[in-house]
Amino acid sequence: MIMKIQRWIRFQTMDAVCFGTLEGDKIRVFQGDMFNSPVPTGESMRLDAVQVLAPLVPGKILAMWNNFHALGKKLGLEPPAEPLYLIKTPNTLLAPGGTIKKPLCEGKVVFEGELAIVIGRTCFNVSEEEAPDYVFGLTCANDVTVSEIIARDPTFPQWCRAKGFDTFCPLGPVIASGLDPAMLVVRTILNDEVRQDYPINDMVFSVAQLVSKISKDMTLNPGDVLLCGTSVGVGSMRPGSTIEIEIDGIGKLKNRFE
Amino acid sequence: MIMKIQRWIRFQTMDAVCFGTLEGDKIRVFQGDMFNSPVPTGESMRLDAVQVLAPLVPGKILAMWNNFHALGKKLGLEPPAEPLYLIKTPNTLLAPGGTIKKPLCEGKVVFEGELAIVIGRTCFNVSEEEAPDYVFGLTCANDVTVSEIIARDPTFPQWCRAKGFDTFCPLGPVIASGLDPAMLVVRTILNDEVRQDYPINDMVFSVAQLVSKISKDMTLNPGDVLLCGTSVGVGSMRPGSTIEIEIDGIGKLKNRFE
Repeated sequence: MIMKIQRWIRFQTMDAVCFGTLEGDKIRVFQGDMFNSPVPTGESMRLDAVQVLAPLVPGKILAMWNNFHALGKKLGLEPPAEPLYLIKTPNTLLAPGGTIKKPLCEGKVVFEGELAIVIGRTCFNVSEEEAPDYVFGLTCANDVTVSEIIARDPTFPQWCRAKGFDTFCPLGPVIASGLDPAMLVVRTILNDEVRQDYPINDMVFSVAQLVSKISKDMTLNPGDVLLCGTSVGVGSMRPGSTIEIEIDGIGKLKNRFE
Repeated sequence: MIMKIQRWIRFQTMDAVCFGTLEGDKIRVFQGDMFNSPVPTGESMRLDAVQVLAPLVPGKILAMWNNFHALGKKLGLEPPAEPLYLIKTPNTLLAPGGTIKKPLCEGKVVFEGELAIVIGRTCFNVSEEEAPDYVFGLTCANDVTVSEIIARDPTFPQWCRAKGFDTFCPLGPVIASGLDPAMLVVRTILNDEVRQDYPINDMVFSVAQLVSKISKDMTLNPGDVLLCGTSVGVGSMRPGSTIEIEIDGIGKLKNRFE
């Protein structure tokens, strides 16, 4: 079966928050619940006439650590026996085009280009085979981090704090459904220079494995997001930088850092 | 100024999710936004005629680690230089009277009785002096944990996962506003035996300090919850146990574990 690829976008008009599918530079407007049989309104809007929002407001955001063989090898880490994850809080959400803000604290601010899985149906304890049925689609994420915070307390690694500052989770520009994740490549471009360019098929745990394994821990709901982890090439951003995460079939998630 | 103590409760009737103030065994029903000038409807209901819900649906739940001198001393830990926290996901929320469910994974399930701070107004970068103005009230929490998970990967402590299983954050029974947190004592009762009985004034970071310091990291919004951390006496629960967290002025948060 070949699934039709749809690219879901959320946006703000003068009056309301709306969503629809992006077709070229036009948005076909839908109403209802994006994750549950949304209905086309018959309206269409020009992309350049609206303000693009993050493609969803996640219920929860889980972020994987050490999920790529290439980065693990570089850091001298064994592939983990199970998905290792932390949580990013809702205040981290940022729209495409929004500004990543330097926190009040000191420390370099690091980009991490990632593939993000968007859950479409409630699931608990699903098998790897069933897992793809519960995925709504895929989007680009920047798992922004103040990496110097992580290890500065010797007794407690501060993963959630280092990745939990306001604006530290840009998502977008669309959620693409119908893509084969194994074929995808993540590129991160800092000030027009390609800094990350890595294949998703190097993941320790695949999209289906992540959804299945994590659904054995906790109920996953429509609009939950799993960040798949990053690979080699992460680095810090100077204020004034432009950072883009690009995945073919999804598009380019572009943000400034100030 | 002596603040009037109010005890906010959320509940389910046949028709709707409602909230109000608990006065003896009667609920004075309010409407609107609990955190923003709610209005009494003039109605009153009997507590025993409704199903009590968790007193709020948190936007985010931060949980402190090593925030009590007595527990730190027992574990050989220095008081931390800054609040150390992890995130609990929304699927952990459980109502008073609800059942804490054993996860699919192996490992002892541990209770941790805690004081929880409920934020009432949006804040960012507030001082310790200003912080109490942003606190709506206080409730009881059980920061349930599969402690054996935390350290089983040698490279990444799995704090969020160990504390992120469904039903692992009972909250309630009410949010009490107007209490002086420094005067409070947390008692945890496992199958009618007192297992924790510790004073909040032993905290490394006080309620005002936690709100102030964490607001320098991230925007806190109405309905966000900060769990203050636990002290000595935590232990595991056998299936079939009853676990109660009690704080005078707030009440008793009672749950089964199965």
